[in-house]
Amino acid sequence: MKIIITAGGTSEKIDDVRTITNSSTGRLGYAIGRVFAEKYGDEIEKIYYLHGMRAAYVKHPKVYPIMIEGVADLQEQLTKLLTNEKIDVVVHAMAVSDYIINEVTTLDRIRGVENSECKADLSGNKISSDIEDLVIHMKRSPKVISIIKKLSPSTVLVGFKLLSGVSHEELIDVGCRLMDKNDCDFVLANDLREIGRDFHRGYLIHKDRTYDIMENNEQIADMIAVRIMEGR
Amino acid sequence: MKIIITAGGTSEKIDDVRTITNSSTGRLGYAIGRVFAEKYGDEIEKIYYLHGMRAAYVKHPKVYPIMIEGVADLQEQLTKLLTNEKIDVVVHAMAVSDYIINEVTTLDRIRGVENSECKADLSGNKISSDIEDLVIHMKRSPKVISIIKKLSPSTVLVGFKLLSGVSHEELIDVGCRLMDKNDCDFVLANDLREIGRDFHRGYLIHKDRTYDIMENNEQIADMIAVRIMEGR
Repeated sequence: MKIIITAGGTSEKIDDVRTITNSSTGRLGYAIGRVFAEKYGDEIEKIYYLHGMRAAYVKHPKVYPIMIEGVADLQEQLTKLLTNEKIDVVVHAMAVSDYIINEVTTLDRIRGVENSECKADLSGNKISSDIEDLVIHMKRSPKVISIIKKLSPSTVLVGFKLLSGVSHEELIDVGCRLMDKNDCDFVLANDLREIGRDFHRGYLIHKDRTYDIMENNEQIADMIAVRIMEGR
Repeated sequence: MKIIITAGGTSEKIDDVRTITNSSTGRLGYAIGRVFAEKYGDEIEKIYYLHGMRAAYVKHPKVYPIMIEGVADLQEQLTKLLTNEKIDVVVHAMAVSDYIINEVTTLDRIRGVENSECKADLSGNKISSDIEDLVIHMKRSPKVISIIKKLSPSTVLVGFKLLSGVSHEELIDVGCRLMDKNDCDFVLANDLREIGRDFHRGYLIHKDRTYDIMENNEQIADMIAVRIMEGR
Protein backbone atom coordinates (compact mmCIF):
# COMPACT_ATOMS: atom_id res chain seq x y z
CA MET A 1 0.00 0.00 0.00
CA LYS A 2 1.31 3.40 -1.02
CA ILE A 3 0.01 6.67 0.38
CA ILE A 4 0.54 10.31 -0.49
CA ILE A 5 -0.03 12.85 2.27
CA THR A 6 0.17 16.56 1.48
CA ALA A 7 0.60 18.96 4.39
CA GLY A 8 1.37 22.57 5.24
CA GLY A 9 0.94 25.45 2.83
CA THR A 10 2.19 26.43 -0.60
CA SER A 11 4.16 29.66 -1.16
CA GLU A 12 4.08 31.82 -4.27
CA LYS A 13 7.16 33.92 -4.91
CA ILE A 14 6.61 37.59 -5.71
CA ASP A 15 10.33 38.26 -6.07
CA ASP A 16 13.58 37.12 -4.54
CA VAL A 17 12.60 38.22 -1.04
CA ARG A 18 8.82 38.33 -0.94
CA THR A 19 6.36 35.48 -0.96
CA ILE A 20 2.65 35.06 -0.46
CA THR A 21 2.28 32.23 1.97
CA ASN A 22 -0.50 30.33 3.54
CA SER A 23 -0.28 30.42 7.29
CA SER A 24 -0.99 26.69 7.58
CA THR A 25 1.25 25.10 10.18
CA GLY A 26 0.99 21.59 8.78
CA ARG A 27 0.17 20.17 12.23
CA LEU A 28 -2.89 18.28 11.05
CA GLY A 29 -1.01 16.70 8.16
CA TYR A 30 1.76 15.79 10.56
CA ALA A 31 -0.71 14.05 12.89
CA ILE A 32 -2.13 12.11 9.93
CA GLY A 33 1.34 11.09 8.79
CA ARG A 34 2.18 9.86 12.25
CA VAL A 35 -0.95 7.75 12.61
CA PHE A 36 -0.37 6.04 9.27
CA ALA A 37 3.33 5.47 9.90
CA GLU A 38 3.04 4.33 13.50
CA LYS A 39 -0.30 2.48 13.64
CA TYR A 40 -0.47 1.05 10.13
CA GLY A 41 3.18 0.92 9.19
CA ASP A 42 3.08 -2.87 8.66
CA GLU A 43 0.47 -2.56 5.95
CA ILE A 44 2.14 0.36 4.23
CA GLU A 45 5.00 0.23 1.78
CA LYS A 46 5.63 3.96 1.37
CA ILE A 47 4.24 7.28 2.52
CA TYR A 48 5.14 10.15 0.20
CA TYR A 49 4.93 13.22 2.39
CA LEU A 50 4.61 16.39 0.30
CA HIS A 51 5.05 19.29 2.69
CA GLY A 52 5.23 23.07 2.59
CA MET A 53 8.48 24.78 3.46
CA ARG A 54 7.49 25.58 7.01
CA ALA A 55 5.77 22.27 7.77
CA ALA A 56 7.64 19.60 9.70
CA TYR A 57 7.55 16.07 8.34
CA VAL A 58 7.23 12.77 10.14
CA LYS A 59 10.60 11.06 10.54
CA HIS A 60 9.96 7.37 9.96
CA PRO A 61 11.63 4.79 7.68
CA LYS A 62 8.50 4.51 5.52
CA VAL A 63 8.05 8.28 5.11
CA TYR A 64 9.60 9.94 2.03
CA PRO A 65 9.48 13.71 2.48
CA ILE A 66 9.26 15.93 -0.61
CA MET A 67 9.42 19.68 -0.10
CA ILE A 68 6.89 21.74 -2.05
CA GLU A 69 7.15 25.43 -2.83
CA GLY A 70 4.40 26.76 -5.13
CA VAL A 71 1.23 25.33 -6.66
CA ALA A 72 3.03 24.41 -9.90
CA ASP A 73 5.57 22.44 -7.90
CA LEU A 74 2.82 20.49 -6.10
CA GLN A 75 1.04 19.73 -9.35
CA GLU A 76 4.25 18.46 -10.93
CA GLN A 77 5.17 16.21 -8.02
CA LEU A 78 1.67 14.75 -7.70
CA THR A 79 1.44 14.13 -11.44
CA LYS A 80 4.76 12.35 -11.44
CA LEU A 81 3.89 10.11 -8.50
CA LEU A 82 0.36 9.28 -9.70
CA THR A 83 1.59 8.54 -13.23
CA ASN A 84 4.59 6.41 -12.32
CA GLU A 85 3.29 4.39 -9.38
CA LYS A 86 0.11 2.81 -8.13
CA ILE A 87 -0.93 5.08 -5.28
CA ASP A 88 -3.69 3.64 -3.10
CA VAL A 89 -4.57 6.69 -1.03
CA VAL A 90 -4.10 10.47 -1.27
CA VAL A 91 -4.79 12.51 1.86
CA HIS A 92 -4.65 16.03 0.50
CA ALA A 93 -4.38 18.18 3.62
CA MET A 94 -2.18 20.83 2.09
CA ALA A 95 -3.45 24.40 2.03
CA VAL A 96 -2.96 25.11 -1.65
CA SER A 97 -2.98 28.74 -2.66
CA ASP A 98 -6.17 29.55 -4.58
CA TYR A 99 -4.23 32.17 -6.51
CA ILE A 100 -0.92 32.30 -8.28
CA ILE A 101 0.86 35.46 -9.34
CA ASN A 102 0.01 36.60 -12.83
CA GLU A 103 1.86 39.90 -12.88
CA VAL A 104 3.38 42.47 -10.59
CA THR A 105 2.57 45.90 -11.94
CA THR A 106 1.38 49.37 -10.95
CA LEU A 107 -2.04 50.91 -10.58
CA ASP A 108 -1.40 53.29 -13.51
CA ARG A 109 -0.37 50.53 -15.85
CA ILE A 110 -3.37 48.40 -14.99
CA ARG A 111 -5.69 51.35 -15.60
CA GLY A 112 -3.96 51.93 -18.92
CA VAL A 113 -2.84 55.43 -18.05
CA GLU A 114 -0.76 56.71 -20.95
CA ASN A 115 2.09 59.11 -20.43
CA SER A 116 2.22 57.87 -16.91
CA GLU A 117 4.86 59.50 -14.84
CA CYS A 118 5.44 56.23 -13.17
CA LYS A 119 8.86 55.03 -14.10
CA ALA A 120 8.57 52.01 -11.91
CA ASP A 121 11.21 49.46 -12.64
CA LEU A 122 9.55 46.11 -12.26
CA SER A 123 12.27 44.15 -13.92
CA GLY A 124 15.03 42.66 -11.85
CA ASN A 125 15.03 40.33 -8.93
CA LYS A 126 13.77 42.51 -6.16
CA ILE A 127 10.94 44.95 -6.69
CA SER A 128 12.00 48.54 -6.14
CA SER A 129 10.67 50.17 -3.00
CA ASP A 130 9.90 53.40 -4.86
CA ILE A 131 6.64 52.49 -6.53
CA GLU A 132 3.67 54.45 -5.28
CA ASP A 133 0.90 52.00 -6.02
CA LEU A 134 2.07 48.46 -6.46
CA VAL A 135 -0.40 45.96 -7.79
CA ILE A 136 -0.11 42.22 -7.52
CA HIS A 137 -2.44 40.75 -10.07
CA MET A 138 -3.30 37.17 -9.26
CA LYS A 139 -4.97 34.46 -11.29
CA ARG A 140 -6.83 31.45 -10.02
CA SER A 141 -4.56 28.49 -9.51
CA PRO A 142 -5.18 25.25 -11.32
CA LYS A 143 -7.25 23.09 -8.99
CA VAL A 144 -4.62 20.53 -8.13
CA ILE A 145 -7.08 18.26 -6.36
CA SER A 146 -9.00 17.79 -9.62
CA ILE A 147 -6.15 15.94 -11.31
CA ILE A 148 -5.89 13.19 -8.71
CA LYS A 149 -8.84 11.00 -9.71
CA LYS A 150 -8.29 11.79 -13.38
CA LEU A 151 -4.77 10.39 -13.22
CA SER A 152 -5.63 7.55 -10.89
CA PRO A 153 -9.35 6.70 -10.65
CA SER A 154 -8.93 3.87 -8.14
CA THR A 155 -7.07 5.95 -5.58
CA VAL A 156 -8.98 6.73 -2.39
CA LEU A 157 -9.02 10.50 -2.08
CA VAL A 158 -9.50 12.58 1.08
CA GLY A 159 -10.08 16.26 0.30
CA PHE A 160 -9.90 19.12 2.80
CA LYS A 161 -11.94 22.28 3.01
CA LEU A 162 -11.08 25.11 5.39
CA LEU A 163 -13.53 27.99 5.71
CA SER A 164 -13.66 30.90 8.11
CA GLY A 165 -16.65 31.95 10.18
CA VAL A 166 -19.45 30.23 8.23
CA SER A 167 -22.51 28.41 9.54
CA HIS A 168 -22.30 24.69 10.19
CA GLU A 169 -24.72 24.04 7.35
CA GLU A 170 -22.65 26.01 4.88
CA LEU A 171 -19.47 24.27 5.97
CA ILE A 172 -20.94 20.81 5.34
CA ASP A 173 -22.51 21.99 2.13
CA VAL A 174 -19.27 23.40 0.73
CA GLY A 175 -17.48 20.22 1.82
CA CYS A 176 -20.00 18.12 -0.12
CA ARG A 177 -19.54 20.26 -3.19
CA LEU A 178 -15.78 19.75 -3.04
CA MET A 179 -16.43 16.01 -2.81
CA ASP A 180 -18.75 15.95 -5.84
CA LYS A 181 -16.53 18.13 -7.96
CA ASN A 182 -13.34 16.17 -7.42
CA ASP A 183 -14.70 12.70 -6.84
CA CYS A 184 -13.38 12.59 -3.27
CA ASP A 185 -14.16 9.58 -1.09
CA PHE A 186 -14.06 11.68 2.07
CA VAL A 187 -13.83 15.38 2.80
CA LEU A 188 -12.54 16.85 6.03
CA ALA A 189 -14.35 20.15 6.53
CA ASN A 190 -13.24 22.62 9.18
CA ASP A 191 -13.61 26.26 10.13
CA LEU A 192 -10.81 28.55 11.30
CA ARG A 193 -13.09 29.77 14.06
CA GLU A 194 -13.14 26.26 15.51
CA ILE A 195 -9.38 25.82 15.52
CA GLY A 196 -7.20 26.75 18.45
CA ARG A 197 -3.91 25.62 19.87
CA ASP A 198 -5.24 22.43 21.45
CA PHE A 199 -8.60 22.30 19.80
CA HIS A 200 -9.49 21.52 16.23
CA ARG A 201 -13.01 20.57 15.30
CA GLY A 202 -13.21 18.58 12.11
CA TYR A 203 -16.08 16.97 10.21
CA LEU A 204 -15.16 13.96 8.12
CA ILE A 205 -17.86 13.82 5.46
CA HIS A 206 -18.66 10.47 3.81
CA LYS A 207 -20.08 9.82 0.34
CA ASP A 208 -23.61 9.49 1.82
CA ARG A 209 -23.22 12.95 3.42
CA THR A 210 -23.13 11.65 6.96
CA TYR A 211 -20.09 12.78 8.91
CA ASP A 212 -17.88 12.01 11.89
CA ILE A 213 -17.17 14.84 14.32
CA MET A 214 -13.73 15.14 15.94
CA GLU A 215 -12.35 17.61 18.46
CA ASN A 216 -8.59 17.69 17.94
CA ASN A 217 -5.84 16.87 15.45
CA GLU A 218 -5.18 13.41 16.85
CA GLN A 219 -8.86 12.43 16.70
CA ILE A 220 -9.09 13.74 13.14
CA ALA A 221 -5.96 11.84 12.11
CA ASP A 222 -7.18 8.64 13.78
CA MET A 223 -10.61 8.86 12.18
CA ILE A 224 -9.22 9.46 8.69
CA ALA A 225 -6.93 6.44 9.04
CA VAL A 226 -9.72 4.23 10.45
CA ARG A 227 -12.18 5.15 7.69
CA ILE A 228 -9.58 4.52 4.99
CA MET A 229 -8.34 1.24 6.41
CA GLU A 230 -11.82 -0.17 7.15
CA GLY A 231 -12.89 0.51 3.58
CA ARG A 232 -10.12 -1.67 2.18
CA MET B 1 23.39 50.96 27.95
CA LYS B 2 20.18 49.92 26.20
CA ILE B 3 20.04 48.47 22.71
CA ILE B 4 17.25 47.68 20.29
CA ILE B 5 17.92 45.02 17.68
CA THR B 6 15.31 44.33 15.02
CA ALA B 7 15.58 41.04 13.12
CA GLY B 8 13.74 38.79 10.72
CA GLY B 9 10.96 39.95 8.43
CA THR B 10 7.59 41.63 8.79
CA SER B 11 4.38 39.97 7.56
CA GLU B 12 1.35 41.71 6.15
CA LYS B 13 -1.94 39.87 6.49
CA ILE B 14 -4.09 39.58 3.37
CA ASP B 15 -6.79 37.66 5.21
CA ASP B 16 -7.07 35.07 7.96
CA VAL B 17 -4.96 32.52 6.14
CA ARG B 18 -2.79 34.44 3.67
CA THR B 19 0.13 36.72 4.38
CA ILE B 20 2.80 38.45 2.35
CA THR B 21 6.03 37.69 4.09
CA ASN B 22 9.60 38.60 3.69
CA SER B 23 11.76 35.53 3.38
CA SER B 24 14.35 36.90 5.80
CA THR B 25 15.51 34.18 8.15
CA GLY B 26 16.67 36.56 10.86
CA ARG B 27 20.03 34.76 11.10
CA LEU B 28 22.10 37.93 10.80
CA GLY B 29 20.06 39.70 13.48
CA TYR B 30 20.45 36.63 15.66
CA ALA B 31 24.24 36.70 15.26
CA ILE B 32 24.27 40.40 16.19
CA GLY B 33 22.11 39.78 19.25
CA ARG B 34 24.43 37.01 20.35
CA VAL B 35 27.57 39.10 20.03
CA PHE B 36 26.12 41.96 22.07
CA ALA B 37 24.68 39.66 24.74
CA GLU B 38 27.67 37.38 25.07
CA LYS B 39 30.67 39.64 24.43
CA TYR B 40 29.37 42.96 25.79
CA GLY B 41 26.76 41.76 28.27
CA ASP B 42 28.52 43.46 31.20
CA GLU B 43 28.18 46.88 29.62
CA ILE B 44 24.58 46.38 28.55
CA GLU B 45 21.49 46.79 30.67
CA LYS B 46 18.88 45.57 28.22
CA ILE B 47 18.60 44.35 24.64
CA TYR B 48 15.12 44.73 23.21
CA TYR B 49 14.95 42.14 20.48
CA LEU B 50 12.15 42.91 18.01
CA HIS B 51 11.82 39.86 15.79
CA GLY B 52 9.60 38.63 12.97
CA MET B 53 7.37 35.64 13.55
CA ARG B 54 9.72 33.15 11.96
CA ALA B 55 12.94 34.55 13.41
CA ALA B 56 14.49 32.91 16.45
CA TYR B 57 15.60 35.18 19.27
CA VAL B 58 18.66 35.00 21.46
CA LYS B 59 17.90 33.44 24.83
CA HIS B 60 19.88 35.45 27.37
CA PRO B 61 18.89 37.18 30.64
CA LYS B 62 19.49 40.62 29.13
CA VAL B 63 17.50 39.95 25.96
CA TYR B 64 13.81 40.97 25.95
CA PRO B 65 12.13 39.46 22.89
CA ILE B 66 9.15 41.27 21.34
CA MET B 67 7.38 39.58 18.47
CA ILE B 68 6.52 41.77 15.50
CA GLU B 69 3.89 41.05 12.87
CA GLY B 70 3.33 43.88 10.38
CA VAL B 71 4.98 47.24 9.66
CA ALA B 72 2.43 49.11 11.81
CA ASP B 73 3.27 46.82 14.72
CA LEU B 74 6.99 47.53 14.35
CA GLN B 75 6.42 51.27 14.18
CA GLU B 76 4.28 51.19 17.30
CA GLN B 77 6.77 49.18 19.34
CA LEU B 78 9.76 51.27 18.26
CA THR B 79 7.92 54.51 18.99
CA LYS B 80 6.95 53.28 22.44
CA LEU B 81 10.48 52.21 23.32
CA LEU B 82 12.21 55.31 21.92
CA THR B 83 9.73 57.62 23.62
CA ASN B 84 9.70 56.01 27.04
CA GLU B 85 13.35 55.06 27.50
CA LYS B 86 16.77 56.31 26.64
CA ILE B 87 17.92 53.92 23.94
CA ASP B 88 21.63 54.15 23.12
CA VAL B 89 21.78 52.01 20.00
CA VAL B 90 19.34 50.73 17.38
CA VAL B 91 20.58 47.99 15.04
CA HIS B 92 17.77 47.84 12.54
CA ALA B 93 18.40 44.56 10.72
CA MET B 94 14.76 43.71 10.18
CA ALA B 95 13.56 43.27 6.61
CA VAL B 96 10.61 45.65 6.73
CA SER B 97 8.05 45.26 3.99
CA ASP B 98 8.25 48.19 1.57
CA TYR B 99 4.54 47.82 0.94
CA ILE B 100 1.47 47.37 3.07
CA ILE B 101 -1.88 46.20 1.81
CA ASN B 102 -4.17 49.00 0.74
CA GLU B 103 -7.02 46.98 -0.68
CA VAL B 104 -7.85 43.54 -1.97
CA THR B 105 -10.05 43.91 -4.99
CA THR B 106 -10.60 42.65 -8.53
CA LEU B 107 -9.23 43.68 -11.89
CA ASP B 108 -12.65 44.86 -13.07
CA ARG B 109 -13.21 47.05 -10.07
CA ILE B 110 -9.80 48.66 -10.33
CA ARG B 111 -10.41 49.39 -14.00
CA GLY B 112 -13.74 50.92 -13.06
CA VAL B 113 -15.75 48.52 -15.18
CA GLU B 114 -19.41 49.31 -14.55
CA ASN B 115 -22.06 46.63 -14.71
CA SER B 116 -19.32 44.19 -14.10
CA GLU B 117 -20.47 40.64 -13.95
CA CYS B 118 -17.98 40.07 -11.22
CA LYS B 119 -19.87 39.36 -8.05
CA ALA B 120 -16.75 38.72 -6.10
CA ASP B 121 -17.34 38.66 -2.40
CA LEU B 122 -14.36 40.35 -0.82
CA SER B 123 -15.91 40.82 2.57
CA GLY B 124 -15.41 38.23 5.25
CA ASN B 125 -12.37 36.68 6.78
CA LYS B 126 -11.11 34.47 4.03
CA ILE B 127 -11.12 35.62 0.43
CA SER B 128 -13.29 33.45 -1.75
CA SER B 129 -11.48 31.19 -4.16
CA ASP B 130 -13.91 31.98 -6.96
CA ILE B 131 -12.57 35.33 -8.11
CA GLU B 132 -11.15 35.31 -11.62
CA ASP B 133 -8.68 38.18 -11.35
CA LEU B 134 -7.74 39.05 -7.82
CA VAL B 135 -5.80 42.25 -7.29
CA ILE B 136 -3.81 43.10 -4.22
CA HIS B 137 -3.26 46.82 -4.28
CA MET B 138 -0.35 47.83 -2.10
CA LYS B 139 0.77 51.21 -0.82
CA ARG B 140 4.24 52.17 0.25
CA SER B 141 4.84 51.52 3.92
CA PRO B 142 5.81 54.32 6.24
CA LYS B 143 9.61 54.31 6.38
CA VAL B 144 9.99 53.07 9.92
CA ILE B 145 13.73 53.75 9.96
CA SER B 146 13.07 57.48 9.49
CA ILE B 147 11.37 57.85 12.87
CA ILE B 148 14.32 56.59 14.89
CA LYS B 149 16.55 59.67 14.88
CA LYS B 150 13.54 61.97 14.98
CA LEU B 151 12.38 60.42 18.22
CA SER B 152 15.84 59.99 19.68
CA PRO B 153 18.58 62.08 18.00
CA SER B 154 21.41 60.83 20.22
CA THR B 155 20.80 57.15 19.48
CA VAL B 156 23.46 55.43 17.37
CA LEU B 157 21.64 53.97 14.38
CA VAL B 158 22.77 51.11 12.15
CA GLY B 159 20.65 50.84 9.01
CA PHE B 160 20.56 47.84 6.65
CA LYS B 161 20.16 47.74 2.90
CA LEU B 162 19.63 44.51 0.99
CA LEU B 163 19.66 44.64 -2.79
CA SER B 164 19.67 41.89 -5.38
CA GLY B 165 22.11 41.55 -8.25
CA VAL B 166 23.42 45.11 -8.48
CA SER B 167 26.96 46.32 -9.10
CA HIS B 168 29.24 46.92 -6.16
CA GLU B 169 29.20 50.65 -6.85
CA GLU B 170 25.44 50.82 -6.85
CA LEU B 171 25.24 48.83 -3.62
CA ILE B 172 27.54 51.23 -1.78
CA ASP B 173 25.81 54.19 -3.34
CA VAL B 174 22.33 53.08 -2.30
CA GLY B 175 23.70 52.33 1.17
CA CYS B 176 25.07 55.88 1.44
CA ARG B 177 21.74 57.31 0.36
CA LEU B 178 19.97 55.34 3.10
CA MET B 179 22.50 56.73 5.56
CA ASP B 180 21.97 60.35 4.49
CA LYS B 181 18.21 60.10 4.39
CA ASN B 182 17.78 58.61 7.83
CA ASP B 183 20.78 60.01 9.63
CA CYS B 184 22.30 56.56 10.17
CA ASP B 185 25.71 56.26 11.82
CA PHE B 186 26.47 53.07 9.92
CA VAL B 187 24.82 51.18 7.11
CA LEU B 188 25.27 47.49 6.43
CA ALA B 189 24.86 47.00 2.70
CA ASN B 190 24.53 43.53 1.21
CA ASP B 191 23.39 41.81 -1.94
CA LEU B 192 21.28 38.66 -2.11
CA ARG B 193 23.64 37.32 -4.77
CA GLU B 194 26.43 37.36 -2.20
CA ILE B 195 24.54 35.48 0.47
CA GLY B 196 24.59 31.71 0.78
CA ARG B 197 24.21 29.20 3.55
CA ASP B 198 27.66 29.72 5.05
CA PHE B 199 28.63 32.86 3.24
CA HIS B 200 27.34 36.38 3.64
CA ARG B 201 29.29 39.30 2.31
CA GLY B 202 28.51 42.54 4.06
CA TYR B 203 29.84 46.09 3.72
CA LEU B 204 29.63 48.20 6.86
CA ILE B 205 29.61 51.76 5.55
CA HIS B 206 30.85 54.56 7.83
CA LYS B 207 29.85 58.24 7.81
CA ASP B 208 32.96 59.06 5.74
CA ARG B 209 31.88 56.51 3.11
CA THR B 210 34.72 54.11 3.82
CA TYR B 211 33.57 50.59 4.63
CA ASP B 212 34.57 47.34 6.31
CA ILE B 213 34.15 44.14 4.31
CA MET B 214 33.03 40.95 6.03
CA GLU B 215 32.45 37.45 4.71
CA ASN B 216 29.94 35.82 7.03
CA ASN B 217 27.26 36.54 9.62
CA GLU B 218 29.60 36.21 12.57
CA GLN B 219 32.14 38.63 11.06
CA ILE B 220 29.38 41.10 10.28
CA ALA B 221 27.95 40.84 13.80
CA ASP B 222 31.40 41.23 15.37
CA MET B 223 32.26 44.27 13.25
CA ILE B 224 28.99 46.04 14.00
CA ALA B 225 29.51 45.51 17.72
CA VAL B 226 33.16 46.62 17.56
CA ARG B 227 32.36 49.81 15.61
CA ILE B 228 29.56 50.72 17.98
CA MET B 229 31.47 50.01 21.16
CA GLU B 230 34.69 51.75 20.03
CA GLY B 231 32.70 54.88 19.21
CA ARG B 232 31.40 55.17 22.74
